[in-house]
Amino acid sequence: MVYQEEWKGPFLSSPSFSQCEATKKLAELALSPPNLREVVSEERMVSLSAYGAGILLLFGFQRVDSQILDTLQKLADERQAVAQMKALFTGEKVNWIEGCESEERAVLHPSLRDLFDVPVSPVRPVRQEVEAELHKIRTFFTEKVSGFTTLLFIGIGGSELGPHALVEALEPYHLPGKEIHYIANVDPDEMTSVLSKIDLKKTLVAVVSKSGTTLETATNEARIRDAFEKSAINSKEHCIAVTMPGTPMDDQTKYKEVFHLFDFVGGRFSSSSVVGAVPVAFMVGVNSFFEMLDGASEMDRLALRGDIRDNLPLLLALLSVWNRNFLSLPTTAVIPYAKSLHRFPAHLQQCSMESNGKSVDRTGQKVSYPTGQIVWGEPGTNAQHSFFQLLHQGTDVVPVEFIGFKESQYPEDFSYKGTTSNEKLTANLLAQALALATGKDSENPNRYFEGNRPSTLILAKKLDAHTLGALLSLYENKIAFEGFLWGINSFDQEGVQLGKVLAESLLRAIEKRKEGKEDITAPAVGRRLLDLVDDLAVGRAVLPESKSHHVT
Amino acid sequence: MVYQEEWKGPFLSSPSFSQCEATKKLAELALSPPNLREVVSEERMVSLSAYGAGILLLFGFQRVDSQILDTLQKLADERQAVAQMKALFTGEKVNWIEGCESEERAVLHPSLRDLFDVPVSPVRPVRQEVEAELHKIRTFFTEKVSGFTTLLFIGIGGSELGPHALVEALEPYHLPGKEIHYIANVDPDEMTSVLSKIDLKKTLVAVVSKSGTTLETATNEARIRDAFEKSAINSKEHCIAVTMPGTPMDDQTKYKEVFHLFDFVGGRFSSSSVVGAVPVAFMVGVNSFFEMLDGASEMDRLALRGDIRDNLPLLLALLSVWNRNFLSLPTTAVIPYAKSLHRFPAHLQQCSMESNGKSVDRTGQKVSYPTGQIVWGEPGTNAQHSFFQLLHQGTDVVPVEFIGFKESQYPEDFSYKGTTSNEKLTANLLAQALALATGKDSENPNRYFEGNRPSTLILAKKLDAHTLGALLSLYENKIAFEGFLWGINSFDQEGVQLGKVLAESLLRAIEKRKEGKEDITAPAVGRRLLDLVDDLAVGRAVLPESKSHHVT
Repeated sequence: MVYQEEWKGPFLSSPSFSQCEATKKLAELALSPPNLREVVSEERMVSLSAYGAGILLLFGFQRVDSQILDTLQKLADERQAVAQMKALFTGEKVNWIEGCESEERAVLHPSLRDLFDVPVSPVRPVRQEVEAELHKIRTFFTEKVSGFTTLLFIGIGGSELGPHALVEALEPYHLPGKEIHYIANVDPDEMTSVLSKIDLKKTLVAVVSKSGTTLETATNEARIRDAFEKSAINSKEHCIAVTMPGTPMDDQTKYKEVFHLFDFVGGRFSSSSVVGAVPVAFMVGVNSFFEMLDGASEMDRLALRGDIRDNLPLLLALLSVWNRNFLSLPTTAVIPYAKSLHRFPAHLQQCSMESNGKSVDRTGQKVSYPTGQIVWGEPGTNAQHSFFQLLHQGTDVVPVEFIGFKESQYPEDFSYKGTTSNEKLTANLLAQALALATGKDSENPNRYFEGNRPSTLILAKKLDAHTLGALLSLYENKIAFEGFLWGINSFDQEGVQLGKVLAESLLRAIEKRKEGKEDITAPAVGRRLLDLVDDLAVGRAVLPESKSHHVT
Repeated sequence: MVYQEEWKGPFLSSPSFSQCEATKKLAELALSPPNLREVVSEERMVSLSAYGAGILLLFGFQRVDSQILDTLQKLADERQAVAQMKALFTGEKVNWIEGCESEERAVLHPSLRDLFDVPVSPVRPVRQEVEAELHKIRTFFTEKVSGFTTLLFIGIGGSELGPHALVEALEPYHLPGKEIHYIANVDPDEMTSVLSKIDLKKTLVAVVSKSGTTLETATNEARIRDAFEKSAINSKEHCIAVTMPGTPMDDQTKYKEVFHLFDFVGGRFSSSSVVGAVPVAFMVGVNSFFEMLDGASEMDRLALRGDIRDNLPLLLALLSVWNRNFLSLPTTAVIPYAKSLHRFPAHLQQCSMESNGKSVDRTGQKVSYPTGQIVWGEPGTNAQHSFFQLLHQGTDVVPVEFIGFKESQYPEDFSYKGTTSNEKLTANLLAQALALATGKDSENPNRYFEGNRPSTLILAKKLDAHTLGALLSLYENKIAFEGFLWGINSFDQEGVQLGKVLAESLLRAIEKRKEGKEDITAPAVGRRLLDLVDDLAVGRAVLPESKSHHVT
């Protein structure tokens, strides 16, 4: 079959996920996968490992063997996963669904960091645009922020979770005398709380919205501008915008500076764009942001390799697909053993679930197999004292991705009872993975651990900007590879539209009611729900007479 | 059958979960549950509602009808769920497994708040002990904290997640001039970061460990004491302890004050004990803590009612079991539309998953049905811009518990484009639930929403201390009811032991290595993992020769 656009070949000419030879073979192999209690050994842990861009990936605690790994490689080959990735890297319009109205856009977040000596992509698309914005970033944060001690970062979803996770991850390297607050939610208490803590005179506000029209962000921008005006401060001198060219926010007359992101970078993949650059540059310095890009770029390079042992993102994606589609495990826990990564799982949750929570394939057909899994997690060791009970002894099996580091970020550590805190952290990480895999017999059935529960260890020397960039790229590319394997479009988010439309409709109904009118174009059930909420204002629900509705 | 201990009857004489008549009937009914796209109506939303303790529970978006609800009631009756709860409330040793060595303890967190005019429990166990500690709290926080502006709260798991969630939830009511920091993790960076932010002279340290021996907490206490000594400050005058009587921490010579919790309160249920009282009293005031107890007590009273329409916690538990066991949905998302509840899902995650992540029943038999589900979530509207794509269009269905409030906490709100921020928040919550339930047709398969995705709305007038207490009790009792229905012991946590033992073993190995020795009693695989981590210190992994392990 010849495609009008040749680059679509890897997407459309491959057998679908369910029709791949490898898929059928993997389904057979999944009937009797290795039991970790029997196979885990020192040799296995060393041999089932991969290393690149400073990241060591140990997958000996996954329920795979060489035959399964070979078949996963075959799956990647049949699905032309790397060729699909190459199409992405070179700027093809991979955000599309054949035969449906769709976004038809390129997906070029890797180009955001393809700035270094050895280019990732054989062609370097959009390098000029990217470099121009980074130049503006460097100039602005070198020359124009001297009076500002506080950054108020207003954005939501992709415009908040990634940047927030990154800035927190680099906390030990924050510049002295700088602080940051985030406003994402339209909840008025979030803004009220922050306003009580900051000095507007020293506050720079970054308003971040790709579309320039996000309801929450527009509302919060209006409120902060109102606060500035009430304090007789010219808000223009305190506000910068991060948005696409041509949006309502792309207006130099309203902002001290406008930084551009582009339609070829999705919100959830925008951490290495100006969206991430603004808060990282303010809080950690521009150079750290470039180090982060360098780490990401180094990992990006690996994402184009054919051998899954050389391609860490593809390997991680295949292990994930193995657990999801063949061992039928519907969730993945991400557990960073690093306090500063406490928002990293929430970022990955978004990046993964918004990308791959899809039910139609590249041709608009409903898929016949599970796609994006539920991603969740909290830092360890904290989580050991929380939900790890279920991970060890629950009726469901949860594959875990442990993230850990040999060294702490700050130079300080503390020795207590013969070991340092960081040694305790590492020992706990390793012990948990080992316990999940190998279990423990007991005559007391309540103290029996069945083991055979899979995990991957993602380890690095130290969490610095470079490593953080590599980690970010590892996951961004993993998520894209999962989509390539499943044959879905990971780059749109039509699923968020319906809720938006209904919310707008209910808001119009609320507005009308204030005028004493009823907006019958809003859904009747929704208006009834508004009544029920209103009834709460009088202290208890006004519900039909029934003994069950009232507390005596 | 007659039991030696009569109170065990409700636990052991009922048919097991899988053998209940109602279970069989529910399995039949689950073959053709109502489709929300067809049944949702104004009338249904009003009629499928329950109200109590200030909380309105709307369950018209669950896939139930009157026959299913009646059968769920029958399940509760067959399992004698309320009789089991009564045994708990009256102080029977409900933390036990028949025929196994087990903890054999009472579970009396409801007694922590059974202090008001109408007693919850017909007998009031342990009232004296509880009141004595609360009296100490009142005295201490009224008379002895005047010089302290900062509370450093050191605890992990149940000794951190609940208190942290509560203090955050009441942020708008924090006392002026007070701040709090939490140290949970043994990650040294967590403590280093906090130490850089606080003035030790004005810092009160609360060390919270039920056992008095938690590794992370003991390590962090040693480090903060070291910091005090290095600053020539007598640490005793700055440290208070929260622990059980008789532990290593129960030592008046080492602490300014020692508050007691008791073996009849589990860590994850200790939020309404002195564990929660200390930070709430410091940050919000003692009276707020009593208001919270009052709200919890009001909800506790409902937990003893027989009719599921009157018993909100039982109703919530049954809906959860319906989704989990009969509609085969393995996770639940908790989405509070309130920024200040941002840590509440993490607390519930712990409370639920540590309680019910179990595989053996009350008689030590392996269960043949799924128990505790995976609980996860983030605040809305943020989450709408994150994982809601998957909730609407993913291949898996996730039941959602939405939590929302008619009024904001702070008096300030902001009107923009005809509606206030709080109205926007509410409209979004309702719109999401409606969208999930009713879906939307489209000729574009990528814009099709299948709908029929269940949720429960948990609504109240305003998030104040009383409402927070009611919410806490709603979930604590829900979790206990789930365990009663499944016939498991929700009150132990044997699953966390193996990881602890292995971590201690690896720590001894690390210690030995510093002396140049190898501890061969530690698992060989664990020691090999330590080698691999050590190798990272030299900048890249030292792995066997293979092209796959090195990046060129």
